[in-house]
Amino acid sequence: MAPRKEQQIFRATLELLAAKGYEGLTVEGVAERSRVNKTTIYRWWPSKAALLAAALVEADLLAMEQPDTGSLRGDLEALVRGIVALLTRPPAADVAVAALGAAVHHRELAEAVRRFFADRFVREEAVFERARRRGELSATADPMLIVDLLAGAVWLRTVFRGLPPDDDFAARAVSAVLDGSATARARTGGPAAG
Amino acid sequence: MAPRKEQQIFRATLELLAAKGYEGLTVEGVAERSRVNKTTIYRWWPSKAALLAAALVEADLLAMEQPDTGSLRGDLEALVRGIVALLTRPPAADVAVAALGAAVHHRELAEAVRRFFADRFVREEAVFERARRRGELSATADPMLIVDLLAGAVWLRTVFRGLPPDDDFAARAVSAVLDGSATARARTGGPAAG
Repeated sequence: MAPRKEQQIFRATLELLAAKGYEGLTVEGVAERSRVNKTTIYRWWPSKAALLAAALVEADLLAMEQPDTGSLRGDLEALVRGIVALLTRPPAADVAVAALGAAVHHRELAEAVRRFFADRFVREEAVFERARRRGELSATADPMLIVDLLAGAVWLRTVFRGLPPDDDFAARAVSAVLDGSATARARTGGPAAG
Repeated sequence: MAPRKEQQIFRATLELLAAKGYEGLTVEGVAERSRVNKTTIYRWWPSKAALLAAALVEADLLAMEQPDTGSLRGDLEALVRGIVALLTRPPAADVAVAALGAAVHHRELAEAVRRFFADRFVREEAVFERARRRGELSATADPMLIVDLLAGAVWLRTVFRGLPPDDDFAARAVSAVLDGSATARARTGGPAAG
């Protein structure tokens, strides 16, 4: 399928999900909205779950630039700012929050969300590989844990607390996971040698 | 109202939410399930949103023990283990995940979830006050940020990734936010003096 047409279908899928929820999402509705024949859509994606999984992973609407600022700190701050934007700025915010919220209730959607996060992580690993080569990451550091702490904090702050992160949120959150919040006397081991 | 009766109502409210979603939750349904008169319920809580907000904050079902282990590290690890249990062990897990997931779609429920997190944080602050008195927390540490990093990571890992945290998850997550993951050369400032 032509990339432009595919993106049209993905955008229609995600907009319909945000507007009507997972129950209200139908391949017929996507066909109408994207002006693509229903049988064409079914030929590529056998179910609405498959279509939504593809849209979550591949839609330009939810794409995030992979940062390469020259430092781990800079890359992680850019990553956090990207997640804040994704969860707070329309139209992507409505889609991202609706998809993730709905995943809680629908087992087949949960699988799509797992693929979404797994796919993101594969891309984010480049940030940590470069950081290791530059000697910025301690030997015991756990990249997926770092990503989950940061992305989870943005989700909790924006969606559950309803508090939009302020301008220095990214810098403070990244400093918390890179520099730690304990005093020297309360630390275990301390930073590994660079 | 007698505390036992109140807890009966709260439990019925949360179970009904988990079973039928926010749309399916009605004061009539709660009255039936808890065997308390509908007008009695309305006398104390004027709407299902008010009832649910009270249940989220006050129900024994979602209560978490406030740890006091003698160290910040021990308290935060206990806190993380409590959140993991809340989000993964039935029956509380179904309720907690359903309530938080539904909050994404319903504005009046979002307010209840905000009160739930605000109320938790008021209780969690005792952990950080004791840590400051013991000289365990750096001067720049931000307690709400630490809580959001940890609780957010548990949510992301369990609900979105569908990966149940393993036994040492709490210790690793707490170490990440207390000790940091950067090497000495990649740190800003370093730990404040104890």
